[in-house]
Amino acid sequence: MTVRQLSLPELFTACAGLGVTGVGLWREPVRAHGLEAAARLVRAAGLTVTSLCRGGFLTAIDPAARAAALDDNRAAIDEAAALGTETLVLVSGGLPAHSRDLSGARERIADALAELVPYAAERGVRLAVEPLHPMYAADRCVVSTLAQALEIAERFPPSRVGVVVDTYHVWWDDTAPGAVMRAGAAGRIHGFQVADWITPLPAGVLHGRGRLGDGAIDLRGWRELVDTAGYLGPIEVEIFHDGLWAEDGAEVLADTVARFTKHLL
Amino acid sequence: MTVRQLSLPELFTACAGLGVTGVGLWREPVRAHGLEAAARLVRAAGLTVTSLCRGGFLTAIDPAARAAALDDNRAAIDEAAALGTETLVLVSGGLPAHSRDLSGARERIADALAELVPYAAERGVRLAVEPLHPMYAADRCVVSTLAQALEIAERFPPSRVGVVVDTYHVWWDDTAPGAVMRAGAAGRIHGFQVADWITPLPAGVLHGRGRLGDGAIDLRGWRELVDTAGYLGPIEVEIFHDGLWAEDGAEVLADTVARFTKHLL
Repeated sequence: MTVRQLSLPELFTACAGLGVTGVGLWREPVRAHGLEAAARLVRAAGLTVTSLCRGGFLTAIDPAARAAALDDNRAAIDEAAALGTETLVLVSGGLPAHSRDLSGARERIADALAELVPYAAERGVRLAVEPLHPMYAADRCVVSTLAQALEIAERFPPSRVGVVVDTYHVWWDDTAPGAVMRAGAAGRIHGFQVADWITPLPAGVLHGRGRLGDGAIDLRGWRELVDTAGYLGPIEVEIFHDGLWAEDGAEVLADTVARFTKHLL
Repeated sequence: MTVRQLSLPELFTACAGLGVTGVGLWREPVRAHGLEAAARLVRAAGLTVTSLCRGGFLTAIDPAARAAALDDNRAAIDEAAALGTETLVLVSGGLPAHSRDLSGARERIADALAELVPYAAERGVRLAVEPLHPMYAADRCVVSTLAQALEIAERFPPSRVGVVVDTYHVWWDDTAPGAVMRAGAAGRIHGFQVADWITPLPAGVLHGRGRLGDGAIDLRGWRELVDTAGYLGPIEVEIFHDGLWAEDGAEVLADTVARFTKHLL
């Protein structure tokens, strides 16, 4: 998504040229390219699919909406399996219209996971609950902290449900390092994503993430923390920014690799 | 600030007409009117000044900037005393330029409070640390949760340093109710402010608060929680919204009183 201006073939070629060995994919461009064709293409490029974004949106109260969300998540699990990634990232969903019940919404997420876990397990896919920054609590994700994500994940086996640590979402939280250590000890860190925090935030606060090194986050500190917690998986750079998407995608990717090396390694 | 389009005389007249017995003031309009004149005017109107906003911005590393911040806070304390309010609200400040050290910034706030508390105590003013929503952590307030605010406040006597509970800033936080109870038991809830959470957020995320009842927050639930915690002080409505400020101030105030009655009482 950091270089969404690239087509999948362009992306895979650019990754290979830069020595990038893994790539996180989003469902929309995969579907646009064709699932099976995308799976063949990424395998042919020798790339690992580090995760698929995203399932989730599991907070509906209305039975039909809930059933549709579960169906969509089963489709996402199938897509993850077809792409050969074991990790489906979940953005849990916001409050239903007119609801003000955050804890009820969080319980519905856990209930939905209980339905999805067996289906995912049969396909070798694990579900990774990503806490989103509290500024998204109303309309996108009622799971706002790593502690909340863990509280849900811990109802299931660590090999089946874990959490995603994304610096953009958790950097401000002084309880997050403890949650990272707890998650790591249990083998529940299913993904680690990085972006920097820059201000002012744009309207809608979706496309204002900073390039690595441009913002307020101690990225190396978070990388070292996740290391210390025992995480051995890939690190995904996930930056949403209109300015970045307007630039040449291959150049953005090369710049991202350079910044990654400088600010995280 | 909810009706900042009103002059102080207009505001006090409108409050009296609606049976509003207290008003929270900001320093800028008070200074524009003249401190002593504003103090006389509010007393003549029979209104209690519930709090003064705001001191704070205590995270500077540079010694000159730190000294200037302390001077400004002493001035704010003097202004609070002159207005007859015992509560100065503190917005703690963001990260200094190029710093990524949130915990260091939080420690500097505590250090600065240690210098300010005796000065404030001599003038009968207590310092109320307000956690701001985590979306302001980088550029406005590194104190993002009630637990963090309490951790700082608890280094001082409850009569001298407490916290402000503002629904807009803490509504998403499932640990906040526990912190409210802890703060209340210690007599550290020095203020309670309400606004609703609406989306999408505007650019800069400063002027997007919702009118009471328009958003995602269970306002009555928070009011009952603060009641249960033993809070007996005023409830301040603090809404920043460009649309609201463009309307007739007296009408906004009347609407706010009606919504307050409907959604909180």
